[in-house]
Parts: sequence; C-alpha cells; structure tokens
Amino acid sequence: MSLIVQKFGGTSLADAEKIHRAARRAIRAELDGQRVVLVVSAMGKTTDDLLSLAGQLTVDPPKRELDVLLTTGEQVSIALMAMAIHAAGHEAISLTAAQLGLFTDSAHTRARIQSISRDRIERELSAGKIVIVAGFQGIDSSGEITTLGRGASDTTAAALAAMLDANVCEIYTDVDGVYSADPRVVPQAKKMHVISYEVMLEMAASGASVMHSRAIEFGKKFNVPIHVRSSMTDAEGTIIMAETPGMEAISVQGVTLKEDLAVVELNGVPNTPGIAARVFAEVGRHHILVDDIVQNIYDGGKFANLAFSTNASEADEAKVVCEQLLNNLGAGTVELDEGVCKVSAIGVGMRTHTGIAATMFDAMSKAKVNIDNISTSEIVISCIVRQEDGPKALRCLHDAFELDKLNGDSEGS
Amino acid sequence: MSLIVQKFGGTSLADAEKIHRAARRAIRAELDGQRVVLVVSAMGKTTDDLLSLAGQLTVDPPKRELDVLLTTGEQVSIALMAMAIHAAGHEAISLTAAQLGLFTDSAHTRARIQSISRDRIERELSAGKIVIVAGFQGIDSSGEITTLGRGASDTTAAALAAMLDANVCEIYTDVDGVYSADPRVVPQAKKMHVISYEVMLEMAASGASVMHSRAIEFGKKFNVPIHVRSSMTDAEGTIIMAETPGMEAISVQGVTLKEDLAVVELNGVPNTPGIAARVFAEVGRHHILVDDIVQNIYDGGKFANLAFSTNASEADEAKVVCEQLLNNLGAGTVELDEGVCKVSAIGVGMRTHTGIAATMFDAMSKAKVNIDNISTSEIVISCIVRQEDGPKALRCLHDAFELDKLNGDSEGS
Repeated sequence: MSLIVQKFGGTSLADAEKIHRAARRAIRAELDGQRVVLVVSAMGKTTDDLLSLAGQLTVDPPKRELDVLLTTGEQVSIALMAMAIHAAGHEAISLTAAQLGLFTDSAHTRARIQSISRDRIERELSAGKIVIVAGFQGIDSSGEITTLGRGASDTTAAALAAMLDANVCEIYTDVDGVYSADPRVVPQAKKMHVISYEVMLEMAASGASVMHSRAIEFGKKFNVPIHVRSSMTDAEGTIIMAETPGMEAISVQGVTLKEDLAVVELNGVPNTPGIAARVFAEVGRHHILVDDIVQNIYDGGKFANLAFSTNASEADEAKVVCEQLLNNLGAGTVELDEGVCKVSAIGVGMRTHTGIAATMFDAMSKAKVNIDNISTSEIVISCIVRQEDGPKALRCLHDAFELDKLNGDSEGS
Repeated sequence: MSLIVQKFGGTSLADAEKIHRAARRAIRAELDGQRVVLVVSAMGKTTDDLLSLAGQLTVDPPKRELDVLLTTGEQVSIALMAMAIHAAGHEAISLTAAQLGLFTDSAHTRARIQSISRDRIERELSAGKIVIVAGFQGIDSSGEITTLGRGASDTTAAALAAMLDANVCEIYTDVDGVYSADPRVVPQAKKMHVISYEVMLEMAASGASVMHSRAIEFGKKFNVPIHVRSSMTDAEGTIIMAETPGMEAISVQGVTLKEDLAVVELNGVPNTPGIAARVFAEVGRHHILVDDIVQNIYDGGKFANLAFSTNASEADEAKVVCEQLLNNLGAGTVELDEGVCKVSAIGVGMRTHTGIAATMFDAMSKAKVNIDNISTSEIVISCIVRQEDGPKALRCLHDAFELDKLNGDSEGS
C-alpha cells in the first residue's frame, strides 16, 4: 500500500474553513487508496504571536523555555486537524513529537533530527487512521522539548517521508510552485514542472523562500520526490527530484534576489595560512551568519582582501568582531558595504557552459547595474549590487536567460 | 527546608505584568528560604478561546483531541512563567505533566490522578530551581495526554502539595478569600480567616465557586492547609484546614446560593426496593448531573414522591429519561419544577444544634420566600426556592445567622 506525506503550512491552516479544506485533501488521498501522514505547522501567525508574548516578558528568554512555548502552536494544529477529519467521518489521530518518538539532539531552537521511531506511526496507520504529526518539534533523549528552527515543519515532513519510504512528500503552501524568479518582481516568471534537489537547494540558499533547505536535503539524501503546491487549487505544482537527463539541457533555470545584505570587507590582511580560518572561526563564535565569501590577493600575494556578505542586521556586530581580530593581528582595516543585495543565476553546469557569466555581466551592464562583488560555484553565479538595483537586475537576468520561454506555466495559469 | 506550593489561576496570569507579579511572589518565597513549586493555569480566557476554535470545526470533538488541544494553554503559561523568573535573575524550570510524571487514568477530559513521580521535581528543587508545573494536565500509562476537568489546576496544586509534604498550598485568585456569602449578593459578607475542609467542601458543592472540590479533598486527605488569597494584594486570605476546637463554636459559617437549577419530580412511584437505584443508574448513564435528592412516602408507604435537583440546562433531558423509565414500570408521572435555585446554610453540627433549621425557615417565612423542597445533612441545610427569591433569601439567612458578626474581615478591608 503506497504512502503519502502531506504537509500544511500556517497560511493553509489559518482558519476553520482552511483546516476543513486540508482535511478533505487528506481524506481524498485516503479514498484513493493511500496511507496518509499529515504534518502541520502552527496556524497563521501563531508562532509570531507566541514570540511576541515572550518578548513582553524578557529580551533574552531561555531557549529551553522558548521551545516549550513555541511547540504549543503545532500541538493546537494537530488536535484541530484530527477533529476536522473526525467531523468528516474518518479516523485520525494526532501525535506530538514525544508521542511519535521524534528524537533530536539537545540544541534548543535549532535541534537536528537524530531518529524517528516507526512503532507508533505504523500501528496507527495499520489501524486505518490518518496520522497527524506536529511539525517543527522534537524531544531529546531526556524528554526535553526541542524545535528544529523556523520553517522546519517542511523538514519534519521530508524526514517522515524518507523514514516511511513515501511515494511523495507534498508541501502545501500559499504559492503554487517554484518559479524561475519571484513573480512579485518578475511578472513573466514561469512555474517549473520539475527541478533537481541541487538547483532547488541553491535557489533556497539564494533567496527563494518557498521551502526550508533541510527538507530538500532530506529529500535528496533519501531520494523522496517533494511536490510543492498550492493548498487552494488542485493544480500540479513543482516536483523537486533527482536530476534526469532532460533537466540538464537547460543551463540557467532560475534567478533569485536576496535583499537586506551587507558586505564586510577586510582589506590589507596578511595573506598567510590560517588567516581566513581565524576570521570565520571568530565570526562563527559570535553566531553571525555568513552568506558568500570572496577573497582576492594583491601585492604579489603578500596581502589579501577578504570579504563576506551577511544580513544587514548583523553587519555592525560583524564589523566590530573583525576589527578586534585585525587589531590583534596588527594589520588591515575593515569596511562595510551596506544597502546591498544579491542577484543569482542558478542552474546546472554554470562553469562548463562558457558564456553564461558573460551573458549575465553583459545584461547587467546594459541595465546600468553596477556589480560590487562576484562569486561563482558549479551551479550558481552571484553578484552583489546596490539594494535599489536588485529588482531591475533580477528582471534583466530573467530576460537575458530567456526564462519566460521555459517549458513551464506563467503565473496565474 | 520547608516547601510551598503556589497556584496561580488564569486571571492572575492574564498579561505580562501579572505574570511578572506572580514571578516576584514566587521569588520572595524563595528568598524567605523556602523551596517553591508553582502550578499555573492557562492565561486569561485561553481555554475558552481554544474551545471556541474546536467548536468552529465540529460539534462533537473526540475527547482525546480536546485534551491535546486544551493542554497547550497551561504549556504556554509554564514557559512564560519560567522566562519571567529568569528575567528577574533567578533559576526556574518548566515541566509538563509528561516531563514531571503526573500519571492519570485514561478518562479524557475528566481524568483522575493516579500517581506523581518524585524524581524530576526533587532533582530540580535540589538544584535550587523554582519548579513550574502545568496545571490541569496529566498523561496516562501509554503517554496519552489527559486533563483533569475544568478548574482542576487547583487539584494539581493540592496533589503536589500533598505528595511533597508542603507546609501550605497557596491558591492565588481574583478574590481575596472565602466569604460568609457571595459579597456580590450580600454586601455585609465577612471574609473567614479559617474554615474546615468539610465546610469548604459543602460550600463549594452548594455554589461557592472559589475553589475546585477535588483540591479540597486532596488537602483534607493529606492534611495540607490550603490558603486561598488574592494575587493582587499581600493580605491574608482564608485558610482551609482541619477542624479545630475553636471552629466548632460557630455553627452556621456561611450561606450559599446555587442558581439555574430545576427539580425533577417523580410522583406516585411504587415504593419497592431498588426503584431509586434504577432511577439514578439511568440518569447517571445519560451523564445528567444530580444535585440533591429528596424522597417522601405516602399512602401507608405504598408510594413515594422522589425528587432531585439538576442544572436547568439538563432538565428536559432528565424528564424524558425519567418518563421512559416510569413508562416501563407502568406507574408514576414526572413533573418539572423550573426556574428555581438553592439556598444553603453550611456549618458544623447542624443537626445537633437544634433550632438552626427553625431559624432558617422562620427567616425565610418573614422574608416571604416560599420553600419548595428541603434537604439536610450533618453540615448543610438546603432549600429550593424560586430563582427570583434567591438573592433575598441569601441576604435574610446571612442576617438571621448574624454572619456579619463573625470574627472576619468585611469586604474591602
């Protein structure tokens, strides 16, 4: 008997009507002869509301207690979803992470899944029930309540799909799939029918906020297709799956925009082994997010300019941390390049298809977008540009790579 | 080292300021050299809001899922309370019923406590932490989430106080103690300094809504004093404790009013053994609440009139159930006495102090209050009167027993 995992996000559970709609979708899958596991997020803005309650009490809540607080959101959702399915005359049972046996490490607010028990879920499925699992939450080996990080209900769903060898993991959300660019910025953006795990991972990392990266990693590792689709329609969405020969034919598949960044530039750093390692060890120790890293050398290789991008909100702290480090080294200065964003072109074989980088830079030049930094990998080329040039840069790249001629659906179709 | 259990109800936790206030009270007890266990309810109207969410989905939610839903309210409260205590620079840890090990039977929505594990709570107390326990909730032996019934956070507190051999169980609420009558109806009502478990139990059962009866039963069984007091002031409230010789001097200690009742009258019932048992087995099978029972016989003992009071909302169903039963017996008729309430005088030795009943009936007669039914026990005399006469009857009894001259505080002092 085939098995399907369906995950519903907060906007797909925002009110009673939407919960009934999600329940009907699960029931339909069951009537189609599948075993059904649902993973649900907290309703609507519940998690933000709970964080706001905590914020009224203290600026620095203990992470353990934050996890106790936030996991109530998903617990409410599983109970209501079970009620909705019962109300429609079908059998269902809700399971918290503790009841299911979803074990993580003890890193509160950003725990990693370590194991998932099969016993309870298989017993309930065998009894003919739709099993509803609370996303985002886990327990550690001492029974402490943990969470997997914001947006990680996707990860719960993908991990369950992998463990249960599901046919597919469906992610129901408020967009109807993955687009060649953000349709709010690029109206001609096309919905992709299929996309490889690798390309989707880079798109997620480069600003496409459709899905949680760790969910895609689970899908990739266990080869579970992930179907991203709208909870409001029956239209097919985008299937994220292993790369097939057909996919390779297209080089650039999507373009993304990541806003509100800053670049921290360490100039005149002695280019001796271990300097970069010391910089990023120190930055990591302060929990400052590092996006891309670029380094150039000059003066016959004696000195280096080392730059990294980070969130605008963390830039000032990053500058202070780096200045202290360079003071200790007795060399170099730190500058901030603020008010910037990153545009990226993502596809397969970006380096082997010569001319992609050239096409990209040429298009930006014609659109009079100045490029501050450039970094490339096998499947991504990224440029740091001024924040105000971001949308224009995204549109010109979408045009230059003719992404509106992809074999997909344009928005609204 | 002495130990105190403090329980805070929903109105005492309605916002961040009130949570901070409750946290300060716990910290003060700790600074006084006591070990502190807090039991908290859901904030403000949370439980009603969650029930309303469930009601939007279905009229008949599975009880198991109701318990999964409702227990989130207390889980939010324990996390926030722990944050508030941390913010004040003290150590605290929150525990759900599953983490504490508070085991119940499996009767969802009305489970009974079966055992409480000492290990975790004693470990945390020994580590110098204030322990915050979620009220109202439990788990059964399979790890299913249960609840103890509305208002049962009091019961959690009293059970913990009993288990931990606490000096006192403090119940913080929005009233400042137990009064000789409801001060909203009888302005001269006096706050009692002390009251026995037995009298408090009867007052709670007769309409005084200050505390959950099962909590008082726990206090009585394990001889833990329960201190009912206001969360808004430092004034002493009312201590519920074992009867002492001094208490016995006063016969009538309080008067109560229980509104919105109906009396179901079964007239002309054959007075043969087992009839009453059959009636109440059948009524119980339909989960109809039975308040007081009165039976008289007539016609040389051949027939009986059997009456019981119940909630007005359950009266119609009770009548139907009783009619079917009498039809099967082939004798008797059922009538409803609707729009009635019950006034009670509660104290010790009501039967041995002759004249109390006479004083009561005389006072009601002078106030022109007609009495429908009368029932008495060792510590209660109750009269069913018209709903509209209830407040007047309560005031005239308070006067007749001179309860305003009790050695207590009048309201507002």
